[in-house]
Amino acid sequence: MNIDQLSTPTLILDKARLSRNIEAMTARVRDLGVELRPHLKTSKSADVARLAVAGNAGGITVATLSEAEYFFDNGFKDMTYAACIVPSKLERVAALVERGADLKLITDNADVARAIQAFTDAQGTTLKVLVEIDCGEHRTGVLPEGPELLEIAAILDGARSVSLEGVLTHAGHSYACRTPEAMADVAEDERAAVVQAADRLRDTGYPCPTVSAGSTPCVVHARDASGLTEVRPGVYMFGDMFHVGLGTRRVDEIAVSVLASVIAHRKDDNQLYIDAGGLALSKDRATAAFEGALDCGFGLVCDAHTAEPINDLHIESVHQEHGLVVSSDPLPFDRLPIGAKVRVFPNHVCMTAAAYDAYQVVDSDDDGGGTGIIDTWGRCNGW
Amino acid sequence: MNIDQLSTPTLILDKARLSRNIEAMTARVRDLGVELRPHLKTSKSADVARLAVAGNAGGITVATLSEAEYFFDNGFKDMTYAACIVPSKLERVAALVERGADLKLITDNADVARAIQAFTDAQGTTLKVLVEIDCGEHRTGVLPEGPELLEIAAILDGARSVSLEGVLTHAGHSYACRTPEAMADVAEDERAAVVQAADRLRDTGYPCPTVSAGSTPCVVHARDASGLTEVRPGVYMFGDMFHVGLGTRRVDEIAVSVLASVIAHRKDDNQLYIDAGGLALSKDRATAAFEGALDCGFGLVCDAHTAEPINDLHIESVHQEHGLVVSSDPLPFDRLPIGAKVRVFPNHVCMTAAAYDAYQVVDSDDDGGGTGIIDTWGRCNGW
Repeated sequence: MNIDQLSTPTLILDKARLSRNIEAMTARVRDLGVELRPHLKTSKSADVARLAVAGNAGGITVATLSEAEYFFDNGFKDMTYAACIVPSKLERVAALVERGADLKLITDNADVARAIQAFTDAQGTTLKVLVEIDCGEHRTGVLPEGPELLEIAAILDGARSVSLEGVLTHAGHSYACRTPEAMADVAEDERAAVVQAADRLRDTGYPCPTVSAGSTPCVVHARDASGLTEVRPGVYMFGDMFHVGLGTRRVDEIAVSVLASVIAHRKDDNQLYIDAGGLALSKDRATAAFEGALDCGFGLVCDAHTAEPINDLHIESVHQEHGLVVSSDPLPFDRLPIGAKVRVFPNHVCMTAAAYDAYQVVDSDDDGGGTGIIDTWGRCNGW
Repeated sequence: MNIDQLSTPTLILDKARLSRNIEAMTARVRDLGVELRPHLKTSKSADVARLAVAGNAGGITVATLSEAEYFFDNGFKDMTYAACIVPSKLERVAALVERGADLKLITDNADVARAIQAFTDAQGTTLKVLVEIDCGEHRTGVLPEGPELLEIAAILDGARSVSLEGVLTHAGHSYACRTPEAMADVAEDERAAVVQAADRLRDTGYPCPTVSAGSTPCVVHARDASGLTEVRPGVYMFGDMFHVGLGTRRVDEIAVSVLASVIAHRKDDNQLYIDAGGLALSKDRATAAFEGALDCGFGLVCDAHTAEPINDLHIESVHQEHGLVVSSDPLPFDRLPIGAKVRVFPNHVCMTAAAYDAYQVVDSDDDGGGTGIIDTWGRCNGW
C-alpha cells in the first residue's frame, strides 16, 4: 500500500521523524540527569509508547482513565494519571490497580484527599497519590508555600491505604513564551516551585520520592533539573506548527500530518478546497498567536510525497469537511488538480490526531521516499 | 443507569428535545411543500436518522463515504453524498452502489465529470450525479448562469452509465446572517440560484428531477420553496449555542450536551475547572461572532439534572482535558463541589459530538426528570 492509494482524509505518521524526535528527547533528559516519563496524551498509541520508553525507565504519563486502561491492556504498568482525580472515578482506578497497574493519581484538594482516604479505607486497595503544585500557570495545583500542601499531605500520609508519592507540576504557561530565554525562565520557576514543595514535605517528615515536572518547551530549554526526579513532556514526539512557531520544532521535524485530496478549484478567487476540514484538522487556531508566515491558519499545506511546504499554501478557513487553501502567490492549480493529494501539518497535533482511530505509518528514511505504508498503529480515543 | 453514575466526560442526548426538533422541522418542510432529506453529518447516528426520516420520504444526506457506508449497513438506501466527489473515491462509491445503495454524488468540475464517465464506462456501474451550484457562499459549485453548468451536464448526460439527477446547492453563508430577514433573503437567493440552474438544464433538454437546497437557517426562515424538490437541513435536530445566537434555537431546545465533572476549585480567582476540555468540547469558537451573553466561550454550563443554565457560567478557555468555568457573579462553589456534574451546551454540536462514539440517551419528558439513561445510540466517526 502506497500513500497515493489511501482514502482521504487520513492521518500519516513518519516513523523516521518520530524516532529522531524521541531519541533527541531521551538524550536531552539523560543530560538533565532525570527520568523521562513521556506523556502519551498526544499519541494515545501503544506502538508510539514503546518507542518513547525505549532506553528510559518505562513509566508513562496519561491524561484520561481510558488511556490508562488502554496502555495497561497493552503491557504498560507504571503510569501517572496527570489530571485531578475526582472521587467518582476511584472505582475505575481501583479496578485497574487490582489488575496490577502501578497507577499514580494527583490531587490538589483536601476534600478529595479525604474521599480517597474513605474510599481506600472501605475498599482496601492501596492507591498512590501525588500532590499537584501550581508553579505559576494558575490552572490546577496548590501553591508550594501555602497551607493546603501540608494539609493534603497529612491526610494522604495518614491514610491506612494511601501511599503519598510526592509532588507534580506542569508549567503550561511555557506555551505563552516566545523566546528560549523566556521558556528557560519558566522552566526554572517550575523546577523551583515543585522542589520547594518537595522540600517542605520532607522537612515536615513526609515521604516525597517523586518530584515531577515537565512540558516540551520547559524540558527543551531548562538550564537545570536539580531536585527533580522526572519530566513528562509529550508533544515533542510529533511536533506541530505551534511548536514551529515557538521554535521548539522545525517543519521538517513534524512527524504527523493529515493526508487530504484536492476536491475543488476556484481559480478566479485563487482558492482551492481539500477534503480535510474542521473535523479532520480540528478547529484549533493556536498559530494565530504568531505573526506573519508562522500563522498558518488551520494548517500548512505540503507535498504529499516529500512533505515539503508548497510555497506558502495554508488552510485559511474550514467547514466540517472542507478546508480552504490559499496562498499569497498564484496557486499551482496544474500541480494540484482535483484529486491530487497533499499533506497538512496541523496547528496542534493533540487535537488533530484525536479525530482518527489509527496512524498510517510511513518511513521517510526509506529509499522509496517514504510514501509506502509500512504499518498501521492504533490509537485510543474517548474517555 | 442514572446520569449521576456515568463516567465523564460523556455525550448526552435528550430524546424528548430531539423528537420535538424533528417533528417541528418535518412539519415546517411539509408546509413548504418539498421533501425533507435530513443531513446526518451532525448526528452520524442510525438511531437519530430513523427518527429524522419518519413521516418523510426516507432519503438522507451524508458528508462522508464513511457515513454512507454506515447508514447503508443500517438499512438506509437513498442517500446524497453532499461533498464534491474526487475520482479516487469512485471505487468505494461503486462498491456501495453495487451492494444496493441509491447513492447520489455531486460535482462542480468538468474534469471530474469526465473521470466519472471514464470510470463508469470501464466499470459498468451506473452512478447518479448532481451538479453543485454556487448560490453565493463561494465555496464550491458552479454559477447558475455560467458556462460550466451546461458543460458538466453535457458530459454527465452523454455518459452511457451516468444518470444526471439534477442540481444541488448549500447556502452556508446563511450562518453569517444575524436576523431572520437576512436569513430569509439568503434562502431566497439560494432558491433562485438553484431553480435558475434547473431551468437552464431543462431548457437545454437535460433531465433535472432533483432541485436540492438547504441549511437549517434557510429552511427555518425561507419565504418560499417554489421550484425546489427537497431541502437538506441537519443541525436542527440537535441545536447548539451558535444556533441560539442566530435565534434559530432556544437554549431549552438544545438536545445534545456534554456531561462533565468539576475537578478543581480556584476560589481566590472565582474559577473552577471541569474535566471537559478541548477534546471533549472541541476548539470551535463559533459564538465569538456574537456580543455579550450570546458569546459563551467554549460552552454554556448548565445543571446536570435540569439542563438549565446556572447563572451565566460558561467555559472561558480549554486545555486538552480541562475546561475553565467562569462567571460574572461569584461562582456557586457549594452547589458545585469537586465531583459535581454539570451539562455543557456546546458552541457547534457537529464538532463536539465527533469526539464521542455514542450518545447516552435521556428523556426529559420522563417523570423522573430525564436523568435516567434509557438507551445508548452509536455514532459513525472518521472517513
